[in-house]
Amino acid sequence: MKILVFNCGSSSIKYQLFEMPDGTICAKGLVQRIGEKHSEAFQKCGDAEIRSDELIENHQHGLQVIRKMLTDPDKGPIKSMSEIAACGHRVVHGGESFTGSMEVDDEVEKVIENYSDLAPLHNPPNLTGIREAKKTLGDKIPQIACFDTAFHQTIPNVAYLYGLPYDMYEKYKIRRYGFHGTSHRYVARRAAKLMNMDKYDADLITCHLGNGCSIAAVKAGKSIDTSMGLTPLEGVMMGTRTGDFDPAIIFYLNRKGYSSEDLDKIFNKKSGLLGLSGISNDVRDLEAKAESGDTRARLALDVFAYRIRKYIGAYLAVLNGCHGIVFTGGIGENEAKMRCRIVENMENLGIRLDDKKNASIRGTEGSIEADNSKIRLLVVPTDEEGAIANDTYNIVSGGK
Amino acid sequence: MKILVFNCGSSSIKYQLFEMPDGTICAKGLVQRIGEKHSEAFQKCGDAEIRSDELIENHQHGLQVIRKMLTDPDKGPIKSMSEIAACGHRVVHGGESFTGSMEVDDEVEKVIENYSDLAPLHNPPNLTGIREAKKTLGDKIPQIACFDTAFHQTIPNVAYLYGLPYDMYEKYKIRRYGFHGTSHRYVARRAAKLMNMDKYDADLITCHLGNGCSIAAVKAGKSIDTSMGLTPLEGVMMGTRTGDFDPAIIFYLNRKGYSSEDLDKIFNKKSGLLGLSGISNDVRDLEAKAESGDTRARLALDVFAYRIRKYIGAYLAVLNGCHGIVFTGGIGENEAKMRCRIVENMENLGIRLDDKKNASIRGTEGSIEADNSKIRLLVVPTDEEGAIANDTYNIVSGGK
Repeated sequence: MKILVFNCGSSSIKYQLFEMPDGTICAKGLVQRIGEKHSEAFQKCGDAEIRSDELIENHQHGLQVIRKMLTDPDKGPIKSMSEIAACGHRVVHGGESFTGSMEVDDEVEKVIENYSDLAPLHNPPNLTGIREAKKTLGDKIPQIACFDTAFHQTIPNVAYLYGLPYDMYEKYKIRRYGFHGTSHRYVARRAAKLMNMDKYDADLITCHLGNGCSIAAVKAGKSIDTSMGLTPLEGVMMGTRTGDFDPAIIFYLNRKGYSSEDLDKIFNKKSGLLGLSGISNDVRDLEAKAESGDTRARLALDVFAYRIRKYIGAYLAVLNGCHGIVFTGGIGENEAKMRCRIVENMENLGIRLDDKKNASIRGTEGSIEADNSKIRLLVVPTDEEGAIANDTYNIVSGGK
Repeated sequence: MKILVFNCGSSSIKYQLFEMPDGTICAKGLVQRIGEKHSEAFQKCGDAEIRSDELIENHQHGLQVIRKMLTDPDKGPIKSMSEIAACGHRVVHGGESFTGSMEVDDEVEKVIENYSDLAPLHNPPNLTGIREAKKTLGDKIPQIACFDTAFHQTIPNVAYLYGLPYDMYEKYKIRRYGFHGTSHRYVARRAAKLMNMDKYDADLITCHLGNGCSIAAVKAGKSIDTSMGLTPLEGVMMGTRTGDFDPAIIFYLNRKGYSSEDLDKIFNKKSGLLGLSGISNDVRDLEAKAESGDTRARLALDVFAYRIRKYIGAYLAVLNGCHGIVFTGGIGENEAKMRCRIVENMENLGIRLDDKKNASIRGTEGSIEADNSKIRLLVVPTDEEGAIANDTYNIVSGGK
């Protein structure tokens, strides 16, 4: 059964075609800079590549280009779109309505629309993707929405409520939602398997460290706390995002003449590793610079690690200890030095890295703790698209 | 040697007269609602009490009233102000300039004035107090400033920098300063003594839980991290203050029509225990309500404890374990149930409370951990005024 997975942004559509249930990737592609002068499309299917520079005006047009590439007689993976049994869509915000992936009907569409207020940059293009896929593929093909927030809906109120007036939660739905849920769920299950534990027995701290970064406390297979909050700004420091800071800094900077609009941009686009280092948002660049003596690059990397370390400690307290700590995402999977920075000098909490094992693991699954480490340390490459394909397959085939 | 200690707020002056070096309190008093219709003054000296309802126009006037009460022929502790050898003043913000208490000269006054920008509600009245004390007592009496921020000046840059663009630190001095330093320092030293350790050997987590609440990680006698930041809004949840939340909530609420001025007030005065419970900012009230089945009161107490617990975990990670956790401040010293809420279910991190010992300690020094607890748990009533008197005495007498 062929399942097509979409991740639609405001000016891009990423997609992957899977053969399910075995999970083989038949093709993956990308349409980017939609509506801009230099839009482009790209698809890879085995060794066959297609690239197009045609001007892509909108998401509808993007979907048509994707249809053309998928059914390309020479280089496409399928002959007709009718071979596709279902589509899975990444949807960022499902609010308090969805605890798992859902087939999209009018009701679900409405809820996704309602939560656009909380995710104005993400939910509208996610919804556009769903609607255009319906149009392009026809009503009979089920569209499944997989929410970034769903896995975190098991977080208890003591952890999701802020210290704000309670009516801010009732009136405006202000609470911790958390994101990267599909990734945290996927790596937590893989990690339990790697540890030969049932997923409902393993207490884990999962660290998704990519462009965005978030940490989750997973107890017996369920998320019980996570570092991102109402929005993906909160939590650990990221490539260009601040993570946590004293909110009163906003009032102080307002008094210095910064508007909220200015600050929103600065905190999301010019902060984090980039802002502190003044050089780059890329850990690899910064490691190279730090190596050659750049103190600001070094400082940015150290702050990045320090803030993750504090969350690991916080979640150790929340979980009353744990079985394993899992690293995933571009940084978590590939950057051995950063993993070391994060967990070094934590022996008294039962955390000991094996430097050799750590150095040898790059982008593959593996354990990196020392033999005498009480807590397991694991690297698990994430696979959000695969997890979405899997959810979609399970819903469509009536399985679980 | 008699030392007078002041804590000047915008509309109040608290004071205590000490006999040093033994630390006996000769008198303590309070002038409040300065400049308002119903201002009042009160002093207690042994069993002798003085109360005055005279209209107190400003801080200068307040100092005159204090002088009158201190030298009251029947009920005052001294005959003449010339018996006072020195004054110690609580000053909230010393920024990056002061790592300890300082005799106030023109230079120091200027720095306190400069940091008013960062502590607009506190530094100006603190400075007024110093200037009025100088006028009232004469130039020959040394005035010593003790800064809330000083103890935290040993925090390394990796912990005091936010994930903001570095020039926000350079241009606007935006960083973590921390507060309650005099209290954290005092209880950390007392705790080391109670544990029969040298203060430079003890690694501690100190929890100052009063009207304001902050947690500090103290390594070998030095603060290396603390929960309050640029302002006292950040960190754990407090009676009426939010503590940490996703800063993007401010932008979201701006879009809902709240001005930054509205929000500043809500976050500082109407949030925390009060905001979540909708009932009270007082742990005692809330415990009583929770006992009688009020779920929102219970929820507020649970969130309060949960957020402290996360900081304890974070600082365990920062310190690589610790010797003891210290509770102080009105809540920390007196509320056994809350102490239990905070540390329960942390056995796997080496933290075990002895319920009986915990219940028996109220406002006195004592240890409350179980015999098999790896980490000591201590209650130490704070004494900020005593610590200020001590610093003042040491500076005036040339000791340390």
